Amino acid sequence: MDTPATLLNSAVLPVTYADVAAAAARLHGVANLTPVVTSRTVDQQTGARVFFKCENFQRTGSFKFRGAYNALAQLSPEQRQQGVLTYSSGNHAQAIALAGQILGIRTTVIMPQDAPAVKQLATKGYGAEVVLYDRQEMTREALAQQLAVEHGGVVIPPYNDARVIAGQGTAAKELLETVGDLDYLLVCCGGGGLLSGCAIAAHALSPRCQVIGVEPATADDATRSFQTKTLQTVHNPNTIADGARTPSLGSLTFPLVLHYVQGMLAVSDEAIVRSLHFLWERMKLVVEPTGALAATALLEGLLDCQGARVGVLITGGNVDLQQVGSWFQSG
Amino acid sequence: MDTPATLLNSAVLPVTYADVAAAAARLHGVANLTPVVTSRTVDQQTGARVFFKCENFQRTGSFKFRGAYNALAQLSPEQRQQGVLTYSSGNHAQAIALAGQILGIRTTVIMPQDAPAVKQLATKGYGAEVVLYDRQEMTREALAQQLAVEHGGVVIPPYNDARVIAGQGTAAKELLETVGDLDYLLVCCGGGGLLSGCAIAAHALSPRCQVIGVEPATADDATRSFQTKTLQTVHNPNTIADGARTPSLGSLTFPLVLHYVQGMLAVSDEAIVRSLHFLWERMKLVVEPTGALAATALLEGLLDCQGARVGVLITGGNVDLQQVGSWFQSG
Repeated sequence: MDTPATLLNSAVLPVTYADVAAAAARLHGVANLTPVVTSRTVDQQTGARVFFKCENFQRTGSFKFRGAYNALAQLSPEQRQQGVLTYSSGNHAQAIALAGQILGIRTTVIMPQDAPAVKQLATKGYGAEVVLYDRQEMTREALAQQLAVEHGGVVIPPYNDARVIAGQGTAAKELLETVGDLDYLLVCCGGGGLLSGCAIAAHALSPRCQVIGVEPATADDATRSFQTKTLQTVHNPNTIADGARTPSLGSLTFPLVLHYVQGMLAVSDEAIVRSLHFLWERMKLVVEPTGALAATALLEGLLDCQGARVGVLITGGNVDLQQVGSWFQSG
Repeated sequence: MDTPATLLNSAVLPVTYADVAAAAARLHGVANLTPVVTSRTVDQQTGARVFFKCENFQRTGSFKFRGAYNALAQLSPEQRQQGVLTYSSGNHAQAIALAGQILGIRTTVIMPQDAPAVKQLATKGYGAEVVLYDRQEMTREALAQQLAVEHGGVVIPPYNDARVIAGQGTAAKELLETVGDLDYLLVCCGGGGLLSGCAIAAHALSPRCQVIGVEPATADDATRSFQTKTLQTVHNPNTIADGARTPSLGSLTFPLVLHYVQGMLAVSDEAIVRSLHFLWERMKLVVEPTGALAATALLEGLLDCQGARVGVLITGGNVDLQQVGSWFQSG
């Protein structure tokens, strides 16, 4: 039986707005205050006033730095001494590595053997040790636990962690403090860390704002979980939005999403490529596929937002430029 | 014999700072106040504090909108009635088209038959009529004059025009008003409209600021003109920086460059591609090759700017995304 999270009092939920505000204080002067971009063309097309919060300009190229730094900054002196472990082949890896570099904490990142060389290099470039594993032989979570037991070290998971969730919520806090009340806030959803953190911030700062999560259609586990109120999973989904290939929401993010999020939408890979093309060509923004999920729902007209004030999170811009040609071949 | 422009009193030069200030007033609320972006990585690499003024976020995707609108906004009611003619296969075409659309002025743009379809479409999309000509049979300047005589219409050239020069200078005015005094300002140079306009603004607002023009090495006519104080030309240079393939500085821009600019630098196409890669991959900015000229001089270390405050104009972001793969093939 699922947890009836919508009936829960928010006081028993794992993250509160006070946690988001505390994260913002920790990140002040460390994270970039990322720009909010508008487009006359988008406003005309949608009939709305749209504000794009550009976390592709965040340090390490994605919002992930917020959660990673907020988590590492709260470690005790003893924990800092032990170092930090995480598993990620993507933006969380680089975020943990840079946060560790800034705070003087040793970091180890577990990546699958077949992770792109460019991502391994970027993570090592920020000073992390990279440990490769064979996807066929074990799960990354199991390896992380094993390494933590054998060598010591605090495991910081990519989304199912209260400190990470609170850190990600500072993106929405900044957006709302910059542009004021919104009617809708569109946020991409993988494991739900950013979505739940941002929903907590929106609930506190703009209570009538409807927060909508956006997933790839082939990885719509969170949409199904949201609709059925029972945790659904997906196995190795095939989507261009690699940051949203997570198997399911987490034990912390699922109740937060049920409590604070008002809707979920799913978009096709073809639609993602169309919106990437628009964001790159017309708005001059380098955005990665996962980073364009929320914008895709808007630009494809999945939300009736005539006359509304709409926030859209652009979440990252880490791409292999050699791949870009193939995305836009039929441009 | 050349004009000894450096000896001229600035009062006899064709554009003054008062013209730039008047252009800024006309553009207020019409042009975008484009963002200024900084990068910890660039600051570390150069030892300077670097401010990138991002005109790729300007309306129509380049600074050209500033000069075009400033020119069209000054036409008399009779001239507006006659309409406007220009020649450009690039960013000036789109800029004139949009300025005409905003001001309700009919615009005609003369383009070579082999201009990319995407540029013809973009220009038509802003409402201009596009007239194609055969490069082998006539020059675009001659066709523009012929059409102006036959059908009426005011010709607005892409750079050798006092109103255009003053409009382009507002980009540097905005940058200096945003970040304060600079030690260096790096500006790309094709026909010299942007360079001379920005140098006028820098001279007025930050008098000790050294203004440096940057050209492609294969199209270094302005560098040679600057050094010899005699107008030099180049014929159809082969460079990825298509906006700087202009044959020479103009009769207005040459004396302004001699009077207000402190130095010229030239960069290779290979260096331009390296800096494009950095701007796209690390700074998440879609920049076109010409738009990256000034940044290239900085990133390649052509200027010793240790400890200095440096402004860099990123001038445009209009690219055919299908070409991008080939630029970054060797990554």
